[in-house]
Amino acid sequence: MRATYLYGAGDVRVIDVPDPTLQQPTDALVRIVRACVCGSDLHPYHSMPANPAGGPMGHEFIGVVEATGAEVNTLSPGDFVIAPFAWSCGRCEFCLAGLQTSCVVGGFWANGGIGGAQAEAIRVPLADGTLVKVPGVDATTDEALLASLLTLSDVYGTGWHAAVRGGVAEGSTVTVIGDGAVGLLAVLSAKQLGAERIVLMGRHTDRTDLGREYGATDVVAERGEEGIAAVRELTDGGSQVVLEAVGHAPAYTQAVGIVRAGGVISRVGVPQYEDAPVGFGSLFGRNITLTGGPAPVRAYIDRLLPAVLDGTVDPGRVFDTTVALADVPKGYAAMDERTALKVMVRP
Amino acid sequence: MRATYLYGAGDVRVIDVPDPTLQQPTDALVRIVRACVCGSDLHPYHSMPANPAGGPMGHEFIGVVEATGAEVNTLSPGDFVIAPFAWSCGRCEFCLAGLQTSCVVGGFWANGGIGGAQAEAIRVPLADGTLVKVPGVDATTDEALLASLLTLSDVYGTGWHAAVRGGVAEGSTVTVIGDGAVGLLAVLSAKQLGAERIVLMGRHTDRTDLGREYGATDVVAERGEEGIAAVRELTDGGSQVVLEAVGHAPAYTQAVGIVRAGGVISRVGVPQYEDAPVGFGSLFGRNITLTGGPAPVRAYIDRLLPAVLDGTVDPGRVFDTTVALADVPKGYAAMDERTALKVMVRP
Repeated sequence: MRATYLYGAGDVRVIDVPDPTLQQPTDALVRIVRACVCGSDLHPYHSMPANPAGGPMGHEFIGVVEATGAEVNTLSPGDFVIAPFAWSCGRCEFCLAGLQTSCVVGGFWANGGIGGAQAEAIRVPLADGTLVKVPGVDATTDEALLASLLTLSDVYGTGWHAAVRGGVAEGSTVTVIGDGAVGLLAVLSAKQLGAERIVLMGRHTDRTDLGREYGATDVVAERGEEGIAAVRELTDGGSQVVLEAVGHAPAYTQAVGIVRAGGVISRVGVPQYEDAPVGFGSLFGRNITLTGGPAPVRAYIDRLLPAVLDGTVDPGRVFDTTVALADVPKGYAAMDERTALKVMVRP
Repeated sequence: MRATYLYGAGDVRVIDVPDPTLQQPTDALVRIVRACVCGSDLHPYHSMPANPAGGPMGHEFIGVVEATGAEVNTLSPGDFVIAPFAWSCGRCEFCLAGLQTSCVVGGFWANGGIGGAQAEAIRVPLADGTLVKVPGVDATTDEALLASLLTLSDVYGTGWHAAVRGGVAEGSTVTVIGDGAVGLLAVLSAKQLGAERIVLMGRHTDRTDLGREYGATDVVAERGEEGIAAVRELTDGGSQVVLEAVGHAPAYTQAVGIVRAGGVISRVGVPQYEDAPVGFGSLFGRNITLTGGPAPVRAYIDRLLPAVLDGTVDPGRVFDTTVALADVPKGYAAMDERTALKVMVRP
């Protein structure tokens, strides 16, 4: 089959690889209906040292089950499924607590011998624990609905995680840093959770316009000190909740600058830094809470799916470009150049 | 009157200063019945550059109101009061939200023209918002009860804040880092909030013995990697809640090492560092929440007072030494040498 591999910064190729096969009795094989390129794929796309072996790419997909191992009980060939960006057993302490990204036996796609999702098919370990079946949907379903279902694989659940961890509730004032797909869906999530004031920090008008449709009440295009001053003025001294959907150090600084005393910074952008200010002058002195991490999107799909299926929300609008598998390298380039917000892949 | 001033590292003196007077109509004058030396006083005691002007010391006290300004409505001369370690208006957004340490017009003792509490008397700004009256108590009340009331001024409320912010609830597994007064009272607080397993990390047996009486189920004397390994083994992989009551960088490292995926690190030890690891390898990857800060003890006194008054709890046992005002320098030395756990001052 054809699959996407990254060989170093900027070097994405679609190559021939062996078809995946069932290896464990708990595996399923899934034919991929739609996959996509993630903002986090751009980190290795920018910085990966050249490696002749390359590595598989892609961790978001929806698809149709083609085969299941002998110990898979809840899935059958033909089932339409959503795959969270982490695979998980569904039975351990962390899975039962809704923290599937810390599953004791789970892992991540395109890692440790598991293939990537920017491909024609994929082997799914621990299929019962990992996949969420969606009755009534198939590969011929309306394109807009497929796009929204695909967001449940990562970006919508990740935006939701930011908002939930941030403690967004009826009447909250929330600031979202970042106008990428996760930031925009953090806006949507905050709105769904009842936020009254939602400030979106981003400078791409086409994106922030969608953010306004998702519920942003204000948009701040400035960054750094200017951006901090603008949000502090809009929120009368600081935002109770800050959802950080970027992951670069300046976004952290911005979050600390705009959060209100006693407030929460909830991060879902994968940090591209390890150390950051947390002492008296940044977090401690004002009783700021820092939370977040890789979203256990598996825990949120059941909660978010009904409004997607009935069309109440349309998170799939974050996809503004679709490419065939052969054109995935163009998709990376478009996201990198910010000419695409988020690229869907149709194998 | 006599008051304690610090002139540089190790240089504590009790000197003559002018008696405090009412300066604002919202002020009260309080004769100090008991004050004490705080673990956080040891930070400038270790590191303050020599300064011939010196600075007043002490931020914990109980006392008797001697005079009130014209706009003080809730207090009268003769009232016995507990003073939180921050003074606050009681009316602003943050005070109303129970975050008096972020009061928009408040401040801290021994700062900005307000005297210190290791003295005979003190001017209390915003007296109505700051002081908590305790009926039925006076300067002749039983010594053990006075000691317990004094802990409500800082260390008990600070331990309680750690536990509350840490989300301690029925059945929680909690690890407390630090066997100082705050750490021991964090143990007591965790116990009161229903924690089932309380691991206390400390190496002073006399202190950890008191910690066991307060509710610690296990004591770990090791530090660093050994201490981390010991707690991880005791807690089957990590502690759901970690209460950090030290403030030095190694305690932070220890907290990150022992916290369980999805867990909380709640800090109340004043950080003696600004930057620390918060990235994928420390907090983010495992969805760890970092919280805490200067405790709004004013918010907790009403909740904690009844069990103190009726003897259900005896937080005052953290005081193991009492000195007269003239001997405050000896008190600092005793705490610094760890020959005293916490020193009470009887002016």
